[in-house]
Amino acid sequence: MSSSFYVGQREFFPGVGRIPFEGRDSDNPLAYKVYDADKQIGGRSMAEHLRFAVAYWHSFCGAGHDPFGPGTRAYPWDQGATPLARAEAKADAAFEFVTKLGVPYYCFHDVDLAPDADDIGEYRDNLCHMVGIAGERQRQTGVKLLWGTANLFSHPRYMNGAATNPDFAVVARAAVQVQAALDATVALGGSNYVFWGGREGYACLLNTDMKREQAHLARFLAAARDYGRSIGFQGTFLIEPKPMEPMHHQYDFDSATVVGFLRAHGLEQDFKLNIEANHATLSGHTFAHDLQVASDAGLLGSIDANRGNPQNGWDTDQFPTDLYDAVGAMLVVLRQGGFGDGGLNFDAKVRRESTDPQDLFIAHIGGMDTFARGLEVAHALLTASPLEQWRGERYASFDSGAGAAFANGQLTLQDLCAHAQQAGEPGQRSGRQEAYENLLNQYLLR
Amino acid sequence: MSSSFYVGQREFFPGVGRIPFEGRDSDNPLAYKVYDADKQIGGRSMAEHLRFAVAYWHSFCGAGHDPFGPGTRAYPWDQGATPLARAEAKADAAFEFVTKLGVPYYCFHDVDLAPDADDIGEYRDNLCHMVGIAGERQRQTGVKLLWGTANLFSHPRYMNGAATNPDFAVVARAAVQVQAALDATVALGGSNYVFWGGREGYACLLNTDMKREQAHLARFLAAARDYGRSIGFQGTFLIEPKPMEPMHHQYDFDSATVVGFLRAHGLEQDFKLNIEANHATLSGHTFAHDLQVASDAGLLGSIDANRGNPQNGWDTDQFPTDLYDAVGAMLVVLRQGGFGDGGLNFDAKVRRESTDPQDLFIAHIGGMDTFARGLEVAHALLTASPLEQWRGERYASFDSGAGAAFANGQLTLQDLCAHAQQAGEPGQRSGRQEAYENLLNQYLLR
Amino acid sequence: MSSSFYVGQREFFPGVGRIPFEGRDSDNPLAYKVYDADKQIGGRSMAEHLRFAVAYWHSFCGAGHDPFGPGTRAYPWDQGATPLARAEAKADAAFEFVTKLGVPYYCFHDVDLAPDADDIGEYRDNLCHMVGIAGERQRQTGVKLLWGTANLFSHPRYMNGAATNPDFAVVARAAVQVQAALDATVALGGSNYVFWGGREGYACLLNTDMKREQAHLARFLAAARDYGRSIGFQGTFLIEPKPMEPMHHQYDFDSATVVGFLRAHGLEQDFKLNIEANHATLSGHTFAHDLQVASDAGLLGSIDANRGNPQNGWDTDQFPTDLYDAVGAMLVVLRQGGFGDGGLNFDAKVRRESTDPQDLFIAHIGGMDTFARGLEVAHALLTASPLEQWRGERYASFDSGAGAAFANGQLTLQDLCAHAQQAGEPGQRSGRQEAYENLLNQYLLR
Amino acid sequence: MSSSFYVGQREFFPGVGRIPFEGRDSDNPLAYKVYDADKQIGGRSMAEHLRFAVAYWHSFCGAGHDPFGPGTRAYPWDQGATPLARAEAKADAAFEFVTKLGVPYYCFHDVDLAPDADDIGEYRDNLCHMVGIAGERQRQTGVKLLWGTANLFSHPRYMNGAATNPDFAVVARAAVQVQAALDATVALGGSNYVFWGGREGYACLLNTDMKREQAHLARFLAAARDYGRSIGFQGTFLIEPKPMEPMHHQYDFDSATVVGFLRAHGLEQDFKLNIEANHATLSGHTFAHDLQVASDAGLLGSIDANRGNPQNGWDTDQFPTDLYDAVGAMLVVLRQGGFGDGGLNFDAKVRRESTDPQDLFIAHIGGMDTFARGLEVAHALLTASPLEQWRGERYASFDSGAGAAFANGQLTLQDLCAHAQQAGEPGQRSGRQEAYENLLNQYLLR
Repeated sequence: MSSSFYVGQREFFPGVGRIPFEGRDSDNPLAYKVYDADKQIGGRSMAEHLRFAVAYWHSFCGAGHDPFGPGTRAYPWDQGATPLARAEAKADAAFEFVTKLGVPYYCFHDVDLAPDADDIGEYRDNLCHMVGIAGERQRQTGVKLLWGTANLFSHPRYMNGAATNPDFAVVARAAVQVQAALDATVALGGSNYVFWGGREGYACLLNTDMKREQAHLARFLAAARDYGRSIGFQGTFLIEPKPMEPMHHQYDFDSATVVGFLRAHGLEQDFKLNIEANHATLSGHTFAHDLQVASDAGLLGSIDANRGNPQNGWDTDQFPTDLYDAVGAMLVVLRQGGFGDGGLNFDAKVRRESTDPQDLFIAHIGGMDTFARGLEVAHALLTASPLEQWRGERYASFDSGAGAAFANGQLTLQDLCAHAQQAGEPGQRSGRQEAYENLLNQYLLR
Repeated sequence: MSSSFYVGQREFFPGVGRIPFEGRDSDNPLAYKVYDADKQIGGRSMAEHLRFAVAYWHSFCGAGHDPFGPGTRAYPWDQGATPLARAEAKADAAFEFVTKLGVPYYCFHDVDLAPDADDIGEYRDNLCHMVGIAGERQRQTGVKLLWGTANLFSHPRYMNGAATNPDFAVVARAAVQVQAALDATVALGGSNYVFWGGREGYACLLNTDMKREQAHLARFLAAARDYGRSIGFQGTFLIEPKPMEPMHHQYDFDSATVVGFLRAHGLEQDFKLNIEANHATLSGHTFAHDLQVASDAGLLGSIDANRGNPQNGWDTDQFPTDLYDAVGAMLVVLRQGGFGDGGLNFDAKVRRESTDPQDLFIAHIGGMDTFARGLEVAHALLTASPLEQWRGERYASFDSGAGAAFANGQLTLQDLCAHAQQAGEPGQRSGRQEAYENLLNQYLLR
Repeated sequence: MSSSFYVGQREFFPGVGRIPFEGRDSDNPLAYKVYDADKQIGGRSMAEHLRFAVAYWHSFCGAGHDPFGPGTRAYPWDQGATPLARAEAKADAAFEFVTKLGVPYYCFHDVDLAPDADDIGEYRDNLCHMVGIAGERQRQTGVKLLWGTANLFSHPRYMNGAATNPDFAVVARAAVQVQAALDATVALGGSNYVFWGGREGYACLLNTDMKREQAHLARFLAAARDYGRSIGFQGTFLIEPKPMEPMHHQYDFDSATVVGFLRAHGLEQDFKLNIEANHATLSGHTFAHDLQVASDAGLLGSIDANRGNPQNGWDTDQFPTDLYDAVGAMLVVLRQGGFGDGGLNFDAKVRRESTDPQDLFIAHIGGMDTFARGLEVAHALLTASPLEQWRGERYASFDSGAGAAFANGQLTLQDLCAHAQQAGEPGQRSGRQEAYENLLNQYLLR
Repeated sequence: MSSSFYVGQREFFPGVGRIPFEGRDSDNPLAYKVYDADKQIGGRSMAEHLRFAVAYWHSFCGAGHDPFGPGTRAYPWDQGATPLARAEAKADAAFEFVTKLGVPYYCFHDVDLAPDADDIGEYRDNLCHMVGIAGERQRQTGVKLLWGTANLFSHPRYMNGAATNPDFAVVARAAVQVQAALDATVALGGSNYVFWGGREGYACLLNTDMKREQAHLARFLAAARDYGRSIGFQGTFLIEPKPMEPMHHQYDFDSATVVGFLRAHGLEQDFKLNIEANHATLSGHTFAHDLQVASDAGLLGSIDANRGNPQNGWDTDQFPTDLYDAVGAMLVVLRQGGFGDGGLNFDAKVRRESTDPQDLFIAHIGGMDTFARGLEVAHALLTASPLEQWRGERYASFDSGAGAAFANGQLTLQDLCAHAQQAGEPGQRSGRQEAYENLLNQYLLR
């Protein structure tokens, strides 16, 4: 990747240049300690493995508001006279930031990139205008679109849901944004298109017909899929699970729920999952678990990397710095042979209290180094440690003989009973959890 | 139901007779205040609606042990000289209790009813002997078996799972118990057969191949199903979801996960779900939610009624006394037309500190009155209140016209966009959660 | 209380008059079913017992924004040309609403009542102006101020805390608001003054010196107390615990933490606690527990009534409709002889999806009826049921003899051992939890 | 520490010798990779810093039972003919294990070391006998007692509490065990005496008088303290907080609660806190938070090191392997100047599925290496990184001038207001959370 960076009419992050790789001994907060884009790990570069993306919304739109106060950051690109002028400046800031960071991808919602409008024509015109500018910036910089999406949760019209709204008029209005966002994604060469159903769920079960709402959701997704394919979108549609927040309960609860939903409605050929770490933990799973469930179903498409606090029951979207989470995630990704067309998007925001412009760089550097180290450790565990052998031996009784016959569905319950009677009481075999955990730490500390 | 009760060689609950219905003004702790078995609610008696069952394990086996101490109750039926003598006395105690309570059903694990044994022959003989006795007691009393099951989680051999054990020898050994428990269930005319996968999950993801284990689980269930059908079992197989405990993570996490699993493996014609309240709440749902998910899939088979503390992250299995939970559950059951062959089993235990023999009666009375009142309120909400009308009107835009066409899969994304453009900005429609909640309290207090 | 109501220059809730009491059989959603202000319960009227208050912020300021979208309600009083004109209209709306509801109290933050301003002079002038208007409305209507407070969490300057900010300049700026809000509270005859430390905590322990920050908090509270007393405030200062949100961790975690803090810093003569239901549940307690802890310390001052979802880990501030919570709360309040100068403020907001003007009335009616019924049941449990006798007998061994001597600190460990040796193994005494729970349901259903 | 080890009449861990330090590149699962007992860190050896202890109960008594099944490990020392013979063999196993591990301390409950008995005389005799043996083993090996305690939660008599039992007879009986355990601790030269109040709390608030029970707890602790001092115990009494489990709610909820309790009852001169990681996380805090709260109060005495799963709401007592937790803990310990007489006890158990004898060694090795690395990183952060400088600068405004005057209690609210008016709007200062987090990872990876 080039070491140059984009600067538009105004430099929005003065004093910060292209972030260099300096190695583990560096004390420079604005340098990578681990992420060395071109370093080869098992036949691919770190950049090819990790396919990092920057999220437009958190990094260039969200100014730090929370339920108890407004934003804290007055962005220099958010001061133009008109909504479109501000959107243009924001795009310049985004491409400057992404190229200074040296990240290959970005992601957006329709209304991050362009100003929203109640009037459908105005909304479409705004988005069309900004797609033109973004496309030009992509060509100038080589930065690519990992995925696009439509924000179907912020506008008050979606308060009771978008595709699952009890009012058909809202469902139809949501289609306008999905159509436009799909058009934009195709125009910008996006590899994926994401659905996060923030309001697709309920605040109160008493007033809700879940079955009917979920059937509508399936119809809506199928219509979107058909439209996307009709305009030449060959990438992957992604569903992003989240169990709750803003709603009391959301339909795309977790990986298992979404996998079941996709299969029940015949959508699993076109749709995969985009797993967000903090959403997984809110649903009562580890990040690695929800990744594994999706991967086991052949449906792990992409990752939204971030982190929550186990003490806090809402989506804090912190930058990922936990090495255990990163190793766990990369074990799943490496075992399935990589991300394919997906990638690793930082759906993370600097804290409301992190108000220095540098903080945004530092946060991404921390997240990227964490996953780069996660990649190194996971690769070493899979290729240099006894991990795969240990695990393989645990299941060896199913590799051949009666065990294999059982696994292939060739044994009846009576066959199993006969086997048990012949074999006698099974020997005890330790699960050795502590040995596995020590092994992980051993490679983490090397 | 008869007002007589069974007493064996010894009366184990002296001083307590058949529990009478005395109405809401009664101060007698050993009388029903609401549950009036023959009272008609919408064309069925309360007994027919609620199909209560007593759980053998909690009520006659579990003496109150917890992770920090042994049991506190020295049961008079647990003092015979041999395991079989104790099992026989326990059966007498069970039938005495169930008939004094006036409950029509009971449920058991193989090793509740009969002594376990490592030797397969001895295990089978024990169970066979006790099935004979239980069958005789059923005929004497009219009490029926709601469901049977095999305990595949207590014996140390199952520490790493039963059907999902990494060692085929254990899988085969588990089949022995399932076969025997199915035989017992058929012999005793049980309406359902339950699988609760207490150890089917993992303690540590690092040493686990989830995909392989879950495939084995499906094979095992199919083999059990085939065997059951081959011996004439015409009832329903039930999976009981639980997200965790004893394992870090269990495969039958919640309703949505199990529904997806059953469908993925073609098991949904024979298997339904047995939803336990405290398991639902441990998985991050309300009890009503998990019931509704199962019911929407046509797969709600039976209920294990109990209650947890929202503050405690383990299965406390308390007797259900929350009227809101009972109303929420009965709304789902009534809307689906009743339990069918399922029922309402009290998978609940008196507290470790509740050591008076009367406490077991008081606990069941409280649970039964709670669900009887839940039935009354749910029935009134559905038939006398505006609830169904309110909810119907919310979705009326899908009953005809473009909305119906969308719901039937007849509209493309472009059609939706055209509709939106024509219709203009959708009007705002309040979700009216507070009005629904007040309505529920209004009927609860009548 | 008068049946008339206040209407200013414009009627903001047309079509709704004074909410009447109509009794449990009423189907009128705009009538009280249980709350009958003048009904006598144990020598006091319901109104005197419950001392209801309406919260200015949720009811007249908050339009329904959440982290994922803006507000959904366009308030008619929020459309004037200037901030002060909007504040004046809002005050008219508030007094119209409160008097139509027939509630005796209201509560506010400085910046609910009057427009905020960075300029200290402008801020003070705004507040002063609105205090004049509010005072006039109070005199016109008889409505009184339960408590005032300063919002020290919304403005970006407080992002790292107010009294606990690492920058002294922010601490000093916070004092400006506290002084002004105390002046306002005294001017309007408020009975209490509240501190909710929404940003008094940390986002990250690594950058935080908890000990120093908490010492500053104590200094700040003492200074506020001294100022309040110097201007004639004779009411109670209240701390409102909350464990987290917006911060990762907040210092006023729960009742026990705040009680310990107040005593450690000698503040317990002037400060009591204002317990919010949803804050208590977020801290891992039941509402009743945190009330009891405060009451046992002699420090339960007031209540912020609302409700969360056990499934959601953030403050949902729903209107309280759970009768169990209400009974539990009123048991604590009645046992301590009532609220004293405190009251029961609805720190609750209608759902973002509840956009009809009527919803605000319906929500308050539901909350008031719930607590009115909670009062009736708690009173009956304490005066007509065996509850107090049962509980008293449990502890009877400490009422006299060696038990009383122990309780009075007159026995040594050796004395206890001697007693044990003489007495032999203690007899087993059931905790009878199920009997207590049934008793509660029994009275709830009468 | 000597490299020899103790073996009694029989070697219970054959094939394992003294665990050596081999460094980070070793692949030997039975060697330390980081823990090098004599390595100097800031003027003390690792052994002196960390003061590791082995827990008698989990390691030599608990065989792996959980609420759903019995133990899985048939210990060779648990096969003698009489309870005392088994206790003697267990002591041999314990001293063999501890000396092979090279750990300087151990901890026990009275009924771990010696057989329990309902008869007070028999109980005392058993304990006395085993204290003699343990004392001899201590002299033979140089192993020391970190702390002793009495198990006041397992026996059914304590089901409703020990010191807080509603029945005085049980309180008195509890004193017998405390007296004996104190005698044992003094006889064996224990540095600390611990109270973990596993049943000191409630299952049900309805039947409970919290205020009375907590007053009794204080009386009991004072009596124990007085007795301890009277027999020459000069060490520290420790309270171990836990929020729940087995009870619904326990009185020693968390650090803040216990600190407040100790101060309210004048016990803070003799009592400190023993913080257990998994208890801290169950109470809604991070481990580091609860340590810091205790340390800030001058009351952090000792640590029970282990780990839970954030997904599981019960005490899993896993061995600690999370390096972040270890760094966080050691930052607190180093900042307060070390453990003093306390230490780091592994209150952790190998998984029920970990049935190889080696697993117990591997588990302890993993925990010790984790904390050894935590020590190294924490020391480097405090002495070689900018951490302390960064944090100091955040609070610099309180080091002098008006800020210092405020911190010293010399400014009134009016003084603060005057300062604010003069100073103008405070400048914005980033909290820089991401920079702090990156710094920690930077040192972790060195």
